[in-house]
Parts: sequence; structure tokens; C-alpha cells
Amino acid sequence: MPSDVVLGQRPEPGRVVVVGTGLIGGSIGMRLRQLGWHVTGRDADPARAERARELGALDAVGHDGNADITFVATPTRSVPTEARAALAEGPGVVTDVGSVKAAVVDGVAHPRFVGGHPMAGSEQEGVDGATPELFEGATWVLTPTSGTDAGAFAQVRQVVTALGAEVLAIPPDRHDNLVAVVSHVPHLTAATLMRLAAGRSEEHRVLLRLAAGGFRDMTRIASGHPGIWPDICDDNRDAIIDVLDELIDALHEVRQVVAKGDRDGLVGALEQARAARVNLPARFNTPANLREIRVPVPDRTGVVAEVATLATEIDVSIVDLEIVHSTEGDQGVMVMLVASSSAEAFRRALLGSGYRASVHALGGEPR
Amino acid sequence: MPSDVVLGQRPEPGRVVVVGTGLIGGSIGMRLRQLGWHVTGRDADPARAERARELGALDAVGHDGNADITFVATPTRSVPTEARAALAEGPGVVTDVGSVKAAVVDGVAHPRFVGGHPMAGSEQEGVDGATPELFEGATWVLTPTSGTDAGAFAQVRQVVTALGAEVLAIPPDRHDNLVAVVSHVPHLTAATLMRLAAGRSEEHRVLLRLAAGGFRDMTRIASGHPGIWPDICDDNRDAIIDVLDELIDALHEVRQVVAKGDRDGLVGALEQARAARVNLPARFNTPANLREIRVPVPDRTGVVAEVATLATEIDVSIVDLEIVHSTEGDQGVMVMLVASSSAEAFRRALLGSGYRASVHALGGEPR
Repeated sequence: MPSDVVLGQRPEPGRVVVVGTGLIGGSIGMRLRQLGWHVTGRDADPARAERARELGALDAVGHDGNADITFVATPTRSVPTEARAALAEGPGVVTDVGSVKAAVVDGVAHPRFVGGHPMAGSEQEGVDGATPELFEGATWVLTPTSGTDAGAFAQVRQVVTALGAEVLAIPPDRHDNLVAVVSHVPHLTAATLMRLAAGRSEEHRVLLRLAAGGFRDMTRIASGHPGIWPDICDDNRDAIIDVLDELIDALHEVRQVVAKGDRDGLVGALEQARAARVNLPARFNTPANLREIRVPVPDRTGVVAEVATLATEIDVSIVDLEIVHSTEGDQGVMVMLVASSSAEAFRRALLGSGYRASVHALGGEPR
Repeated sequence: MPSDVVLGQRPEPGRVVVVGTGLIGGSIGMRLRQLGWHVTGRDADPARAERARELGALDAVGHDGNADITFVATPTRSVPTEARAALAEGPGVVTDVGSVKAAVVDGVAHPRFVGGHPMAGSEQEGVDGATPELFEGATWVLTPTSGTDAGAFAQVRQVVTALGAEVLAIPPDRHDNLVAVVSHVPHLTAATLMRLAAGRSEEHRVLLRLAAGGFRDMTRIASGHPGIWPDICDDNRDAIIDVLDELIDALHEVRQVVAKGDRDGLVGALEQARAARVNLPARFNTPANLREIRVPVPDRTGVVAEVATLATEIDVSIVDLEIVHSTEGDQGVMVMLVASSSAEAFRRALLGSGYRASVHALGGEPR
């Protein structure tokens, strides 16, 4: 019951309903069952609900009018209908996990409904990829409004925290604008850049040979399946259009800077972007606490193992690793992020094994 | 002498001048000395030329009026002046290595000058990063025009091939348009997307937590130093403006598609981009010959080493590897490219060691 909730305290195990038993719904069920909750679930596809029960994500398939909380984990399209049905079915609180929030929150508009968006996924789609650890350390956005019951919000927050996630509360429209900026518009832009290149079809072979690592990085997300995008673009239409307009205006400005040969303006803009980007990896560590190690490596069996084994031997944890093919040849550069305290020891170990390693601040400056 | 050149035959060792003894110039000198050439070099900074000689990139510092070929490996700005000086100094052919071609080729406009652009670089800048293998397997663009002497082109082509590179001949203006598409405009766009995000400064912390792998990939190149960009944007101004205009128009079209809710139009555009992107990694192998292996991994010391060592043990060569942090938690997905013939064996070995590995076609479809 909302009124019994105390902030920061793990909720007593209760009863939960999961509507939609895919990756997210299944993972919620598994984790809450571990914590002693009674989990009831259902799915538009009865076989999928049955599979979730077999995998240990559910105690029962069906409905539960006495649920303390219902997670609607269906495609965004179905959320308002399912959420309203759950609100009508009992006195518990209801939340969802859709990636766009304003349309859903407006569509439900109920004091006991709190919109949510866990920033967690997995390469393994469907309930077979479900795991109770899916949300461990993940950010989970909740989008309360002025119409949200404070107790309902507190209760959803407690359960989400019990799932292992960190709650970030922002208004629904701000959420949608921010994901348009960091996800939806970048995706559409990557696809557009890729199409620009592909349009030069007679020279496609040439382009392939000229396209270096930067272009490959930028267009990587364009290789995803288009299936989910019509719904996202419909649901988040206003925010996406606003951000696309902003991007188009900003590119017009860049065009003017280039056309005028405004060198200071160009450097200023790029420097601003660089400073912001250098801060981006700072999710678990501050940039000051991380160093980039770069190692030119040949393309041959075992080189990644050698370098990574070396790190393990001297107890250096590799936070991030990628191989950048900086040339068209069979050479690359392995770029690793490690704690700054271990960077120098790692570099020396690499040098001792014949690798020309160098240590850089995040973003590339040698130090 | 141009007239003595036979296509496809390795040139007899001769005399070469390298103007500008940095990474590229130094590497050219090292390789040609290995092949028996006499290498003379100079640099605007005499200490740098001396350093190149110490490192074995040059036989002598200074001038050589009897050179068969001169490589001008200075910043693009100085190329026309240096190239004209070299053409006046002797009867040999002259080429350059600048990243923008039409301005240089127009600026020199001589039958014995052939513009060039090696698609090779290194994380180690300057002559200390020079290596005779730098161009092994790299693409080296040459940009002959209707005014280029055929023998001069053939001779430059032979020497570049001797350096280990594969020659790609295209007109200077096409080169500049293509690099604007695959390099310059993507860079400016990445910086612009990053600035859009950074502009929401009061929410920077929130944005950081919402920015997933796709955004990090797209904006990675924005972390580079802005120093080189004013020259590039000046030298390739016309092509960059053309391509920026094309991009702005294309983004307008995307905006209309989203505004109208044109789901088929959106899927069509994204599908076109996806098909083109899936072909992109096909530089050493065709996509049909490569598979993606995806392995969810915890963020802890040694996991990369374990996985890569496993690959080595069963003789699987990892063509490419990156770790994608798909959640905000301390989990990631290791994405590796391997030959399709070894993908299934690798997956089984990973499963045997407790990793939930899956095999995908390039671009993500499980198979």
C-alpha cells in the first residue's frame, strides 16, 4: 500500500503482476521471486507466458487483483490499455518500461500510474535472455507528474531499487527530449549519413576503401533492424522533430563557419564538442581516474589474448577495449581504458613484451 | 625516368627525395631504403630531418637534383610550393600525401606531378612512429588528371606499390567529395550532435546516464583534437559544403517522414542504410565470410583475456573486437568478428567455458 512505504527501505515481499513476459518482464519476475515476492504474469502470446513460468520468472500465469504493483512490459503501443486494465483490477500501483514516456503517461493519466524506462537491455532478446541480474547497477528512469500520488511514486521507486537499479526521476517530456538527443536523432542521423554514402553507388567499392574507423563507428547503429523505429518515431514524434530541427539549424551554422573560413569559430565549436565527449565515458569513473592505453597490433590470432592476459597477470582491469583499424592494412590499434593508477605499470609490461604501448588522457592527449 | 617504366614491375632502386620527414615521410624513407633506394630528406625543422636520419629513414639530409621521384609529405598548405620547387630542381616525378587533392593538384598543375593520399596513419605521430610497414596493404589514392604524363603516373604507381600499398586512381575532385562524405562531414556531424547534448548543460549528468553505446560510438571521433580541421575545411571547402547541404536536405526529408508518420518510408530508408552498413566491414573479407560473436560479459579483470585465450587455443582469429556497455551497470557485451568457418566452434568453446555466446550475421541477425 502506498501509504505504508518508507523511503530507502527495502519493501516487504508482496505480490506483483508482470504484463508482457519478454526479456524485461521475465527479468523483473526472476529477481522479485528471488526476493520472496509472489509473481503472476501474462502475455499476449500464452506460450511465452508459459515459457516464462518454466524458466522460473513466474509463480503463476494469469491475473491477480491483489497485486501491490503491476509492471506493464509490453510494446509501448499496448501500455495505456494494459495499464488502465491493471488500475481497474485492483488498488495497487502500476508502472511500465516503455522507451518513450509522455504519450504513455498522458494516455494513462492516473495518480497510481508512474511511467518508467529501465536503461537496460541484452543482446539475448526474449524471455530466454532474462536474468535476475539484468538491472543490477542500471539507471531506471521514473517520470512522475504533478498528478502522481507521492506514495505511489515512493512504492515504485522502492521496488525498482530492490531490482538493483538506480532511480532517476525526471518529467516525461524531458525524458523524451533527452532520449531524442542521445538516441533517436543520432540513430536517424547515422542512417542518413550511411545513405548519403550508399547513394554514390557507382563508387561504393571506392568508398568502402576510403571509409576509416571514424565512419564505421558513426554508422554502426545504422546496421540495426529498422523494425522498432516506426513505433519510436510515432510515439516520440514531437521531441524527435524538435531535435532534428535543432540539428539542422546547427549544421547550417557549421556550413556558414566553413563557407566563411571562420577558423576560430570552427576550432571553438570542435573544442566544445571535444570537452563534452571526453566527459562521456565518465560513468563509473571520472575521466581524471582513467587513462587510454594505445597499442598498435598486427591482425593475427592471439594478439588480443596476449595483451589481455598480460593485464590480468599484473591485476590491471580493462574497463573498455576496442580495436581500431587505422589503416587499410592488416594492422590495428588496440585502445583500452584502465584506471590511471595502473596505466604506467601496464604500459611498462606491454613494452617488456614488445608492444609499443602509449598512455593517453581520455580523448587522445599523450601523457 | 617515366618512359622506362613497365606496369606491374617493381622499379629498380633509384634515388628519392622526401620533403617533410614526419610519420609518413619517415616511413616512406625507411621502406625505400630497405629496397635499396638512396633516400635524401629535408624538413622545415632541421632537427626533425636529423632525427629521421638517426632513425634510419634517410641516407642524407638536403637536396638531390637527380632524384627519380620526390614525395612531398608536408602539411597540405606547403605542398604546391614544395612540389613546384622539386619539379624545378630536376627531371624526376613528384607526388604528395595530402588529405585533400583538388586544391593541391590545381595549384601545381604540372605533367610530372601526381597527387596522392595514402589511407594510412598511426597512433604514434611524428617520425618516431615511422615504420617501413606503415603502408603494407593500405589503400593509396592517386589522382591523375588529363594533364598528367602517363609515364609519370605509371612511375609513381610503381613506387607506391613497392611501398606495399594498393593504388586506387580517381580524379582529384571525386576524391575530395568522397572523403567529405566518409570523413569530413561525419566528423563535423559528430561534433554537432555532441554539442547539442552538451548544450543541455543543466542536465548533463542525466544525459551521461542515458547515453548508451550508440551515442558513444557516434560521437567518439568528436574527442579528437580540433587542430587539423581549419586547414581541412579550408582546403576541401567546396566539397564539404556540398555534402553538408546534401545532409541537411536529407535530414529535412527524414523530418517530413517522421512528421507525417510515414512508417513505410521510414522503414525503407533505414533498411537501405542497414544494407549499406552491413557491407561496410567487408574490407578484408566479404560479409558472407564473417560472423559476429556476442558474449555478455561482466566488467572484471581478466574476462577479455579468458575469451581471447580461448580463441587462441582453438586457433580462431579475432578480426575485430569491441566491448559494448549495453547497460549502465557493470556488464557489457563483447562483440567479436571471426571467420564464419570458425564461428560455431568458437561459440561452442565459449559455451563450454560458461559464456552465453551467440552467433550473428554481420549487422545483428542471429544465425
